[in-house]
Amino acid sequence: MSLKDEIHEQPAVLSKILQSQADPIRRIASALHAQEVHSVLLAARGTSDNAGVYAKYLWGAYNHLPVAMAAPSLFSCYKKLPAFKDTLVVAISQSGESPDIVGVVEEGYRQGAPTLAITNAVDSPLARAAHATIDICAGEEKAVAATKTYTAQLMAIAMLSSALDGDDERWRALEKVPGLVSQTLALDEAVRQRAERYRFMDHCVVLGRGFNYATAFEWALKLKELAYVIADPYSSADFQHGPVAMLERDFPVLAVAPDGAVFDDTLALLTRLREEQRVELLVISDRDEALSLAHTPLKLPAGLPEWLTPVAAIAAAQLFCYHVTRAKGLDTESPRGLRKVTLTH
Amino acid sequence: MSLKDEIHEQPAVLSKILQSQADPIRRIASALHAQEVHSVLLAARGTSDNAGVYAKYLWGAYNHLPVAMAAPSLFSCYKKLPAFKDTLVVAISQSGESPDIVGVVEEGYRQGAPTLAITNAVDSPLARAAHATIDICAGEEKAVAATKTYTAQLMAIAMLSSALDGDDERWRALEKVPGLVSQTLALDEAVRQRAERYRFMDHCVVLGRGFNYATAFEWALKLKELAYVIADPYSSADFQHGPVAMLERDFPVLAVAPDGAVFDDTLALLTRLREEQRVELLVISDRDEALSLAHTPLKLPAGLPEWLTPVAAIAAAQLFCYHVTRAKGLDTESPRGLRKVTLTH
Repeated sequence: MSLKDEIHEQPAVLSKILQSQADPIRRIASALHAQEVHSVLLAARGTSDNAGVYAKYLWGAYNHLPVAMAAPSLFSCYKKLPAFKDTLVVAISQSGESPDIVGVVEEGYRQGAPTLAITNAVDSPLARAAHATIDICAGEEKAVAATKTYTAQLMAIAMLSSALDGDDERWRALEKVPGLVSQTLALDEAVRQRAERYRFMDHCVVLGRGFNYATAFEWALKLKELAYVIADPYSSADFQHGPVAMLERDFPVLAVAPDGAVFDDTLALLTRLREEQRVELLVISDRDEALSLAHTPLKLPAGLPEWLTPVAAIAAAQLFCYHVTRAKGLDTESPRGLRKVTLTH
Repeated sequence: MSLKDEIHEQPAVLSKILQSQADPIRRIASALHAQEVHSVLLAARGTSDNAGVYAKYLWGAYNHLPVAMAAPSLFSCYKKLPAFKDTLVVAISQSGESPDIVGVVEEGYRQGAPTLAITNAVDSPLARAAHATIDICAGEEKAVAATKTYTAQLMAIAMLSSALDGDDERWRALEKVPGLVSQTLALDEAVRQRAERYRFMDHCVVLGRGFNYATAFEWALKLKELAYVIADPYSSADFQHGPVAMLERDFPVLAVAPDGAVFDDTLALLTRLREEQRVELLVISDRDEALSLAHTPLKLPAGLPEWLTPVAAIAAAQLFCYHVTRAKGLDTESPRGLRKVTLTH
């Protein structure tokens, strides 16, 4: 399977996790309710860490759970350990192998905290270390750049959020995701044509906020890994506290701006960047007001509530990264200097 | 006062906060002990957010306090609020004015959580909203790029950590900081000469880990704000999970690598980047093994324990950013597109 195959496999993977993991995830949610968990410590690296950013916003917004991103080096290098109290320890890892991530779960387990692994490898060291495991059901991922495992992680996180608050309407929204991701992937040929424009782009900023802060990070990471573009991700709020100074006329700005609670603020920023700073703008959105500002508009299908837009938005971004990598004549399957599984301590 | 004056004012500011805030900080620590705080929610943006990253590592390592970085948009845009339970809410802000940051403290107060402001403006909306305030005593900061307020924030965070665990040896280490920052600032002329080499650098990555993860972020932010360099900060561990693919021969890599628990791992990475990937390396360190790898070595004075090296390391980095900005003929006092106080919602 090539990277492109894996990108297009995503609707099938999302359907599979929805079907096969709904019951296990509901059982995990019941157990967590019984344990009166009040906060989450989350450990992950790379693409999985970006899925963790989504968990931070989603569980914070819908489940009243403050999520702290673990600093694995506190465990592995400093041997100094935060105290776990009423805290769920969650680790997200495709391979389930990185020792520093496994170490966070082991320490949580030792202190008596409930622990959860979200992984593509249910017989991995990580899965063995945790009390409970969500199988993201993505099948083997051959391309070094993660795509289907990222959206499957997002789905697992969204399913757990819905199970924790037991809202049937949210489950019905989840069931629309595979179809809407499939519609998004129909942008493939249009994106291929637009990608030519970015043949010589060597840097950019990537903006997203709220639930799509994660999308900005994952989009930027894919651009770095695949196309060797120096892509700097920012929340559109943080961006105004300093980094906006970098911008000059024609600076490439990529933005994800779907409808929702942060749309108006993001639209105001994009309008200012386009009209005053005259940047080059690519926008992924389901709203015409935002798309009409862009040199390259990538239109998302309508029909997803804001909290699920990150799954469709990253699919559009993956197509963009794939085709820019091809336009640059680079290797989409095995980026230089990377292995599929990175072990850090 | 110019930016350069403010950089050189830092030893005096650090002495002042040490002297005038020791008693208030010890009282705050006693009150927090009495309230059995088990975790921290921290809200900040821009440079203050980088100080928050230092708090996350320091309080995690020394005070067994897991620190969650707040997602202000959860409060301001989504109106969906995490539950506070045994949680100290900390906001860091030079001006104490940004509405989204004040909003996090107000919500904490409303829910009955203890709240703490770390600010340079003790009569600001933020200070008025919080139960307790640490005055960072930095005096007016005129340059748009924050320097002395950042190191003063680090000092406040380090003093609170030491007060919370009541360790006299750590207080004695704190007292060495102003003198060692002063020694670091004696690099000024040497850095000015070296800065010529970076006249045409338009991008780079900045690496740091553990306590100096914050240094990597703040160094990168100063390069963006002042010198318009696209500077991408990474922990040296996360960097290996994808972004390392961007590197090619002569890619500029800036690293902070003082002695300590993460030194060996960082040294191994820098050795590999230099010898195999042939990158261009600038290193801030007190260890000759790391400095000898660098095209530009910036030597820190010996004598600081690892947890206090971020204060001296960023002083060297500030000199670098200042002189690169001058070498590029840019405005050190008022970067384009920025105001001193940024109000985000």
